[in-house]
Amino acid sequence: MKTLTVKSAQHHYPIYIGRGLLARAGELLRQNWSGQHQIIVTDDTVAPLYLEQVRRALEPEKLVDEIIIPAGEKHKTLETFEVICSQLLQKQVRRDAILVVLGGGVVGDIAGFAAASYQRGISFAQLPTTLLAQVDSAVGGKTAVNHTLGKNMIGAFYQPNCVITDLDTLNTLPSRHFIAGLAEVVKYGLILDIQFFEWLEENIDALLSQQEASLIHAIERSCAIKAEVVGTDEREQSGHRALLNLGHTFAHAIEANLGYGEWLHGEAVGCGLILAARLSAQLGLLNNDSVNRITALIKRLGLPTKKPPQLDAKTMLASMALDKKNVTRHRRYVLLRDIGDASIYDQIDTSAIEAILN
Amino acid sequence: MKTLTVKSAQHHYPIYIGRGLLARAGELLRQNWSGQHQIIVTDDTVAPLYLEQVRRALEPEKLVDEIIIPAGEKHKTLETFEVICSQLLQKQVRRDAILVVLGGGVVGDIAGFAAASYQRGISFAQLPTTLLAQVDSAVGGKTAVNHTLGKNMIGAFYQPNCVITDLDTLNTLPSRHFIAGLAEVVKYGLILDIQFFEWLEENIDALLSQQEASLIHAIERSCAIKAEVVGTDEREQSGHRALLNLGHTFAHAIEANLGYGEWLHGEAVGCGLILAARLSAQLGLLNNDSVNRITALIKRLGLPTKKPPQLDAKTMLASMALDKKNVTRHRRYVLLRDIGDASIYDQIDTSAIEAILN
Repeated sequence: MKTLTVKSAQHHYPIYIGRGLLARAGELLRQNWSGQHQIIVTDDTVAPLYLEQVRRALEPEKLVDEIIIPAGEKHKTLETFEVICSQLLQKQVRRDAILVVLGGGVVGDIAGFAAASYQRGISFAQLPTTLLAQVDSAVGGKTAVNHTLGKNMIGAFYQPNCVITDLDTLNTLPSRHFIAGLAEVVKYGLILDIQFFEWLEENIDALLSQQEASLIHAIERSCAIKAEVVGTDEREQSGHRALLNLGHTFAHAIEANLGYGEWLHGEAVGCGLILAARLSAQLGLLNNDSVNRITALIKRLGLPTKKPPQLDAKTMLASMALDKKNVTRHRRYVLLRDIGDASIYDQIDTSAIEAILN
Repeated sequence: MKTLTVKSAQHHYPIYIGRGLLARAGELLRQNWSGQHQIIVTDDTVAPLYLEQVRRALEPEKLVDEIIIPAGEKHKTLETFEVICSQLLQKQVRRDAILVVLGGGVVGDIAGFAAASYQRGISFAQLPTTLLAQVDSAVGGKTAVNHTLGKNMIGAFYQPNCVITDLDTLNTLPSRHFIAGLAEVVKYGLILDIQFFEWLEENIDALLSQQEASLIHAIERSCAIKAEVVGTDEREQSGHRALLNLGHTFAHAIEANLGYGEWLHGEAVGCGLILAARLSAQLGLLNNDSVNRITALIKRLGLPTKKPPQLDAKTMLASMALDKKNVTRHRRYVLLRDIGDASIYDQIDTSAIEAILN
């Protein structure tokens, strides 16, 4: 097992990464929390796979309850959030309890927001069961639900007591979802760590076959880079955290226009990374060799390298202008000066974006 | 105008106290916030009284929008919270905007929670228009909505950019509400400051006639004591913040059993302070002279000194056992060792509580 410590203004907390960790959840929780009442929150896809195992790991010493929500992004709503809060009240959950959040990014986001808000905040632990959650959504303290007028529009910055990443949960993850998660892994190399990018180029086959040492290294390095960036700008105020959005303005436009779920988030991010690289080259920041290396790696992962043909430049541009990250109406983009060297640029010329989208 | 600085882990912020401050809201906001878009959130009782004045004060330099919610505790729900969030999205409110929250405790709590949660947190300012909000709910960063199973069960600790307390708003506050607000003022003297309690005994008539200097001193001292206590325990973790609940376990039991709104919160608190003093005496902590002084002051304010006759001891005790503040099932009470010297006690004998309730 590897342990990584995340430093947050709220508190520091460990990320545990290894095999067989769900069975050790009780022991790991007790190192980071001292109450009596544990409430497992999971969804109806993950429950049949892992709920029993986690309950057995928690039960010997403490009271265990469970809340099961319907799976899927379409249930990441204020309504489901209220269902969780109502059940917590019905179970007479007090402030010294902990939510044990078992599942992918959706259940992590919504149950994390419930932990942040129930009685103005109780403890919670993340037990991510998808690669995307393990390298991205379970780290950094972003919790939220969607609104019909926008994704992740209602939420909180709220840090868990610990993250328990059991690699064995990837055994039940569909291959398409595993590959989509790797898009975010590539992103971390691109924004901050050329050595990690090169390691990915060299170890891509081991990673695709889920060889243990490679997997641990990829997850650990991804979490470390994310934690480092988040640590400098936990509440997304200075703008530094925006580096994590490399490729995401394009990705959100693809997802919003295709309809969420048509492409997986990671698939849209894979394509978005290539578009960000091409825009960087278009503006004279990045050389073409680097664009080609990035495109080659995304392609070897089996991720889409081109935007969906049915989306034209005009539609994409209109969506991107509305993106939440574009806080100050400045047409802000994360661009690459080199592999491993991302930076934020304002007032990007629309014609440059049009050029790479056509 | 007096300015008091509140030190919070999130940030420090000023409380401005004086006459005619709503008309200066734009100027005061700009000292604590640098965006472009201001959204006034108020209720349909306060809107006809002060909305126009605040809008005029904000408009000269910045964009102003407004959201009006229905007045009253029964609308302090997740549903109204969602209405606010939906309107913020419809108005395309971005992260650099500020919510200008105008009204009493209910609108402050719910709009404060909206500020905490919308896009994971935007700026907000409190413009409290009731004495209770000015000395209590607008200070300390507690925001929340009610759930059918409990008051303030869903919320956040979230600090405003500034608090603008315009004493002129008290001109339109019904006398019964003004007097109820004074119960919290007395509470601050009782928990931490015997000199302030003595000042209240001496200046009660000036205060009841809303003489300006007395009013400013009472509000300033109340805010300072609250800020001092909150500063030691912002997220209600060490237990120190619980001192602010002196009398409140009794008050909540009265409110819950009479039906919310039958007695005003401050009226229940006035009575609760006397019951807490009597329980302290019953346990040998406080002398009877002090109990009599406290009772006399509450009585001179015109607040109830006895619990509602229709509530028997058994009903009260059952409610108090369920109180949210009783986190650890320890029958925890804030008690007085002297006027100006409150402390927290666990495992209070039920028979002592029964004795003072009979």
